[in-house]
Amino acid sequence: MLHEALSGRRLTKLEYEHELPQLQDKLLDAQFELRKERARAVVMILTGIPAAGRSEVVNELLGWLDPKFVTVYGFREPNEVERQRPPLWRYWRVMPPKGRIVILHGGWYDDFLTASVRKRGRPAAAARREVDRIQRLERMLVADGVAVLKIHLHIGPELQQRRLRRLSKDKTTRWRVTAEDQWYARHYGRVERAFEHCLEVTQQPCAPWHVIDGTDRQHRALEVGRVLLEGIEGRIGTAAARPAGPSPAKARSLAARVRLPTVMRGPAVAEEDYDRRLEELQGRLALLSRRRKFAGHSVVAVFEGMDAAGKGGAIRRITASLDARQYRVVPISAPTPEEIARPYLWRFWFQLPPRGNYTIFDRSWYGRVLVERVHGLAAKPDWRRAYGEINEFELELTEHRVIVAKFWMSVSPAEQLARFRERDRNPLKRFKVDPEDWRNRKEWKEYQAAARDMIALTNTSHAPWAVVPADDKRRARLEVLRVLCDRVEAALD
Amino acid sequence: MLHEALSGRRLTKLEYEHELPQLQDKLLDAQFELRKERARAVVMILTGIPAAGRSEVVNELLGWLDPKFVTVYGFREPNEVERQRPPLWRYWRVMPPKGRIVILHGGWYDDFLTASVRKRGRPAAAARREVDRIQRLERMLVADGVAVLKIHLHIGPELQQRRLRRLSKDKTTRWRVTAEDQWYARHYGRVERAFEHCLEVTQQPCAPWHVIDGTDRQHRALEVGRVLLEGIEGRIGTAAARPAGPSPAKARSLAARVRLPTVMRGPAVAEEDYDRRLEELQGRLALLSRRRKFAGHSVVAVFEGMDAAGKGGAIRRITASLDARQYRVVPISAPTPEEIARPYLWRFWFQLPPRGNYTIFDRSWYGRVLVERVHGLAAKPDWRRAYGEINEFELELTEHRVIVAKFWMSVSPAEQLARFRERDRNPLKRFKVDPEDWRNRKEWKEYQAAARDMIALTNTSHAPWAVVPADDKRRARLEVLRVLCDRVEAALD
Repeated sequence: MLHEALSGRRLTKLEYEHELPQLQDKLLDAQFELRKERARAVVMILTGIPAAGRSEVVNELLGWLDPKFVTVYGFREPNEVERQRPPLWRYWRVMPPKGRIVILHGGWYDDFLTASVRKRGRPAAAARREVDRIQRLERMLVADGVAVLKIHLHIGPELQQRRLRRLSKDKTTRWRVTAEDQWYARHYGRVERAFEHCLEVTQQPCAPWHVIDGTDRQHRALEVGRVLLEGIEGRIGTAAARPAGPSPAKARSLAARVRLPTVMRGPAVAEEDYDRRLEELQGRLALLSRRRKFAGHSVVAVFEGMDAAGKGGAIRRITASLDARQYRVVPISAPTPEEIARPYLWRFWFQLPPRGNYTIFDRSWYGRVLVERVHGLAAKPDWRRAYGEINEFELELTEHRVIVAKFWMSVSPAEQLARFRERDRNPLKRFKVDPEDWRNRKEWKEYQAAARDMIALTNTSHAPWAVVPADDKRRARLEVLRVLCDRVEAALD
Repeated sequence: MLHEALSGRRLTKLEYEHELPQLQDKLLDAQFELRKERARAVVMILTGIPAAGRSEVVNELLGWLDPKFVTVYGFREPNEVERQRPPLWRYWRVMPPKGRIVILHGGWYDDFLTASVRKRGRPAAAARREVDRIQRLERMLVADGVAVLKIHLHIGPELQQRRLRRLSKDKTTRWRVTAEDQWYARHYGRVERAFEHCLEVTQQPCAPWHVIDGTDRQHRALEVGRVLLEGIEGRIGTAAARPAGPSPAKARSLAARVRLPTVMRGPAVAEEDYDRRLEELQGRLALLSRRRKFAGHSVVAVFEGMDAAGKGGAIRRITASLDARQYRVVPISAPTPEEIARPYLWRFWFQLPPRGNYTIFDRSWYGRVLVERVHGLAAKPDWRRAYGEINEFELELTEHRVIVAKFWMSVSPAEQLARFRERDRNPLKRFKVDPEDWRNRKEWKEYQAAARDMIALTNTSHAPWAVVPADDKRRARLEVLRVLCDRVEAALD
């Protein structure tokens, strides 16, 4: 119970003046180390009931730390752009790079609390989904080296009233009491219960809550400072308890069942036939994408496959049927230093389309379990947990009415070789020739094994893979368009 | 006149097959050089009347170039986030880094054309301001090494009708004709006149228009490809004709008149008095920032001054009076590689506040004419033209109801030395000590001269400087708050 946290502990001036310099000294050291090592980032979320001293504490912390490397964010009601993305999108955008500290006023708990305090009749299922989302996000952050420090500042109802009254009485301080504060103070009981419930259901070992008594100004500041210190030093918020996913044996047996055919059954398609069927499918996609209902959805299409598998060609057949204002093609290559310093999925969150739009990824987050795995660019524990993280990420998307269509363009080694040779011969295709492609070709078996694991472990019902036999370019393109049309149509009906 | 551009030139299949490989070969070479040298970026804006072949041409270009380094953007009606920023903000965001190509479907001309075609009664002054804005932007881009290629595709009314009819007749291609196309086709005369006017008023030597006949599919593609080639190779869109600004003599005499007093007249402020006056001013700012009318404005505050001049302290006194959701403090340091590769002001555009919000810059775009000038980090022509560019940038802001408040915190060398020594003595201020600060101190005279020039040349009526004597910290903070309150109040009344 929250009121049990109200110890009423007070510090004498002497105690405070003794303890503060020591703490500040340690904080500055820790922050310096954090910046130097760049092994970790810190996200501190501060919730609190009005007049418990949240803003004052943040100001004090900024006075103790080097404020150039601390960023404070508060959030209003989601705006139009934010509403068109999954609920946690706006928080992803402000995640700090390694070496830095971000302080969130309320952070992702504000939406949750506002909903429980103000909207009494919220369906339990919606609340549960939100808790799941929050827990998933925090687990992922912690696993990615972001310490998540959750602090709640609390005071009792009498003290709250007293503080608000005192501020209101004086003409020069009256502005400090907002209408929102007064509303919350009038509903103290309901607010306290909402906080209690919220803290209880979002408690987890990798990101525990710290309830701090806001009664004494100096005591509370030092307490928050101490939590921050532990977080910067990596002593809390690092116990990454990831769900294990399927056992290795189970995963192997799943992967063994994945087939990657490179040749489609049935007869070839003559050029004239191809042109007609392509036009038909493009028309179908165009009309689907203009349907009124489509304005409530969006599409994330993912293309993976060996070099020269025909990803680019298939993508251009899709975009040719869309309005230029309606799509964006995002080619994915090695991450920039800015991106490397953040959680793995961060750079992909940025690219999510608004409603009624397409984002088409030419390679994607699956690089983690393909190229990064095969070439040892990601550590084994990192790419292994990526399967689960990716499934959760895509679940977040589909829950938000994003259609996720994933294509594995499956080409045979012989066909790839023929295409490489054609590229070498044709000077106008020289931009497609990369010495690395030949190197990747040598790892064919490892790539195929990685692709099988990937498809086995991320072929979810909400975001299934389509394996497209790609030795015949024309039929592969028609197949991609057909699958995409089917997926969009199913979502609209 | 646009119809004069309709040469009706057609290519035989033989001609096309002869010319295309040569052009494509040159384009690939040029693109490769562009990427290797990273000295230039290319922005191609493609306008055109419906059925002139705009989308087809873009698809053809993407087939000829290495599409991984070309990004295509189309724009819808501005969304909520975009409407809260100056009109050109959303285009700034997609500017390519050096070495890359961006193709804009319509780009900043779409808004202009839509307004002239659809809204007949637009005030002439609004249209003129928009033309000014566009011309300023293009000049700035060209001066910053971005080739701006403006291409308009045109066809006559009969051909347009014929093409739209043919597409509509066939069941499989009917989807290609949108309601928007049909509207534009019905108003051919009005649309053509709007284009003619637009091209005429936005013609400028550094970014000329190219009108291309869209009659023959192959001819138009080659023509657009040739303009692009010239742009990539730096043969057009490089004649940077910047307005000269005041003559050096005039600038010198203006700068000589700038005073940078470090001590305020009048008596010192006692601690108790200070607390009371601070609380009063903070309350005044808080209440101003909560006024309903403030939701239609935003504030950009800029703090410049020598090290230890008290910028951070003054900023914290401002933020203490604002809602945490209402402001963002942006400390500016050396640009990242991503930022260096783009026009100088690019990284600052990103940080503009939404309506009702503050962005406070701890150092700013004035770094160009201060640190970058003094330490030779920017070439002389670059920092010299920055004065004009900055004035135009700030004009853009103020025209969009952004209050721009600029503070030069003026500290004396003796007071700075005392503060440095205090920092050295106090381990808890060690994060404020930087060997570079001592180096900068040696360049005191150069910095003061640069500050005088800066204030003389950017002290505009829309965004005036406040020079704040800062040897007395308390009074400096009160003065900053007072000026800021006055500026906000004046804007609201």
